[in-house]
Amino acid sequence: GYGRFGAQYVEDRGVGLSDTIISSRLRFNVDATTETDAGVTFGARLRFQNDDGDTQTVGNNAKFSASFSGFTVSVGNVDTAFDSVALTYDSEMGYEDSSFGDSQASFFAYASKAIPAGAAGYMGVAATYSFGDANFYFSYVNPDQRVSTLPVGTNEEVGLAFDYSVGQFKIAAAYTADAAGIADNDIAFLGAAYAISDVANVGLNYYDNGTIAGVDVGDQVTLYGNYTFGATTVRAYASDLEGASNTAFGIGADYALGEGTRLSGSIQSGFASETVADLGVRFNF
Amino acid sequence: GYGRFGAQYVEDRGVGLSDTIISSRLRFNVDATTETDAGVTFGARLRFQNDDGDTQTVGNNAKFSASFSGFTVSVGNVDTAFDSVALTYDSEMGYEDSSFGDSQASFFAYASKAIPAGAAGYMGVAATYSFGDANFYFSYVNPDQRVSTLPVGTNEEVGLAFDYSVGQFKIAAAYTADAAGIADNDIAFLGAAYAISDVANVGLNYYDNGTIAGVDVGDQVTLYGNYTFGATTVRAYASDLEGASNTAFGIGADYALGEGTRLSGSIQSGFASETVADLGVRFNF
Amino acid sequence: GYGRFGAQYVEDRGVGLSDTIISSRLRFNVDATTETDAGVTFGARLRFQNDDGDTQTVGNNAKFSASFSGFTVSVGNVDTAFDSVALTYDSEMGYEDSSFGDSQASFFAYASKAIPAGAAGYMGVAATYSFGDANFYFSYVNPDQRVSTLPVGTNEEVGLAFDYSVGQFKIAAAYTADAAGIADNDIAFLGAAYAISDVANVGLNYYDNGTIAGVDVGDQVTLYGNYTFGATTVRAYASDLEGASNTAFGIGADYALGEGTRLSGSIQSGFASETVADLGVRFNF
Repeated sequence: GYGRFGAQYVEDRGVGLSDTIISSRLRFNVDATTETDAGVTFGARLRFQNDDGDTQTVGNNAKFSASFSGFTVSVGNVDTAFDSVALTYDSEMGYEDSSFGDSQASFFAYASKAIPAGAAGYMGVAATYSFGDANFYFSYVNPDQRVSTLPVGTNEEVGLAFDYSVGQFKIAAAYTADAAGIADNDIAFLGAAYAISDVANVGLNYYDNGTIAGVDVGDQVTLYGNYTFGATTVRAYASDLEGASNTAFGIGADYALGEGTRLSGSIQSGFASETVADLGVRFNF
Repeated sequence: GYGRFGAQYVEDRGVGLSDTIISSRLRFNVDATTETDAGVTFGARLRFQNDDGDTQTVGNNAKFSASFSGFTVSVGNVDTAFDSVALTYDSEMGYEDSSFGDSQASFFAYASKAIPAGAAGYMGVAATYSFGDANFYFSYVNPDQRVSTLPVGTNEEVGLAFDYSVGQFKIAAAYTADAAGIADNDIAFLGAAYAISDVANVGLNYYDNGTIAGVDVGDQVTLYGNYTFGATTVRAYASDLEGASNTAFGIGADYALGEGTRLSGSIQSGFASETVADLGVRFNF
Repeated sequence: GYGRFGAQYVEDRGVGLSDTIISSRLRFNVDATTETDAGVTFGARLRFQNDDGDTQTVGNNAKFSASFSGFTVSVGNVDTAFDSVALTYDSEMGYEDSSFGDSQASFFAYASKAIPAGAAGYMGVAATYSFGDANFYFSYVNPDQRVSTLPVGTNEEVGLAFDYSVGQFKIAAAYTADAAGIADNDIAFLGAAYAISDVANVGLNYYDNGTIAGVDVGDQVTLYGNYTFGATTVRAYASDLEGASNTAFGIGADYALGEGTRLSGSIQSGFASETVADLGVRFNF
């Protein structure tokens, strides 16, 4: 898991609210595995996550998995294809690993914390296959497995994804039908990154963010890059969202403290030109 | 602890409900012990259990214990005598370890998950003594230790049990007065099992399931057996419950995958001829 | 963490309530740390605590820390200066470690369990510095960091403390302004202890317990001592609280069972002459 804490600034956070707060997260993963005689590894994961503003810490719903020579099947609170594919979160920055350049679409993902009572019937099945430098992802989520017929407008979510590295190039693609269980909310992602050198990377992500209640969420293009000199990595991105009034962008920097610990900060501007900034520490354990 | 997941079928589960769902459970036990200079071991256990249909994972109430040369005293969320005695659950089958042949009586047992707010005063004391191949069990549960006088109709539950192995025979007996804290709900269990050979076992369990609100829950007799060939174990049982319209029965099979992991399935028919079935994997860690 | 269980007696606990109950606590601390290349240790703690009368076990809010050569900064659910300083809890006795001689003031402290929904904005920052036999403590708590202006009558709590050992003497002092976030509730503590010999100690604690809603909580003086012979330690204290009708006092004894396990009991009389007693076991792990 990891811990992180620092100062988070959100311009005009709300009436009577403080723009700057101390924002923190502690995440513990509890994993258990056993391997059968034939070499199949069965595993289970539970996560305990505490964020600033919480009043307690409870575990999330369980994820079960069975793995055999690069092939993994998961059941329960699974990692979905759209959320697992490479590159899609590579424009993130700051100690909170955030970016307006992330997909603005709605889709299901692994739930790190408790879910609402109405989501108690959520059940996912996922499969991943790794072959050399290629990864294939499939996920299926039933928003409510308890009922024999889902409500009108709610469907099972089905996702497919793929990523591949070759030399200095990495590419990724994902497609999810009825994303977040919303009928006809079909979303897509295409990403490509190029390692200019050992210390410099650029990437371009394209998202079709789907349609919710007849309203197109809009296509989105995010361009990002980073450059490392010594212990310092500087990062930047710009993201254009169809229908948004402004282009979002961000600049950030990490300072590596060793052993996976870093001091990170960023200043970002959103699609409505709102400014957010963060500065803090993140450490892994 | 252990993990299990698979498909669970319940015939006519309910109006608008799906008969077949993915049913799962993840159970983590957190144990801590320390041994004094005189050789007494003090211990404590907390359990975190997540089942399909849950929205989060919380720990249960604590069990404390002190052990010395075969004698163990427990306090808190204790294992009760009726729930701990040997043989009583030996007709269970499938990856969910279920059986209609289990006692249909109401009695207190170790609570794996959160308990209702009204049960916050629940307090148990239990003792077990192991001597050679014999085990003795005692448990006392106060349904609400906070109040000076329990409500009318509610009593402390007191249970006694015993099991013993000799050669190919194993026998077990249990008696609990005011089971589940219900006044005059006195329940009993007698069980015997015989190992025909290294790979074949048969057993017979008799239950007096007590009386609740003046209504006799009925006597129950369960006959069960299992036979192992190679990695496969087949299981069967039939259970007759006084006053029930039908005899319950089940057939099941386990396929051992090694390291305590097994693929298990069962088809069972209940006392009202309702059919249930399960097929899945269970693994220990 | 630790476990403890035993009998707790409270005279006239309440109408319809049982004076004697089995009282228990199980506490697990989950700590994670990582050390950077420069030798700074980053850490995080989560605590899971279950007490008798609870219905489940959840984790508390996280505490984060960064330590470097005797200097530690904490963020989140921090240990406050007034709660951390030496000597202040040294009059406690019994397996539940309780004393009427503890400060009767209201102040913020590390929360071992879930906090009320209204306290979700609680955020603390603390620093300690250890230098030889001296420790310095600072803590700052914002009762609600989410709002730009705290409600009238609510302020940030700021605390300072210090303790020092020299030869057979130990001294401690603490001052906290706006304790528990209550405006003008300024509290203070002065303590001194003297080790008469290897087996006998005496101490004197003085508290200014502050003012809440214009009412002076009263000054308090606690005199305590303990004496060890073999595995047994006897303890006693007397505490005088300004405005109270009676002097509180207690006598207790510990019997060490080895490896940090002890059998402890006490009989104490409160400021209104109410009698409480406890007898039980406490063990560390």
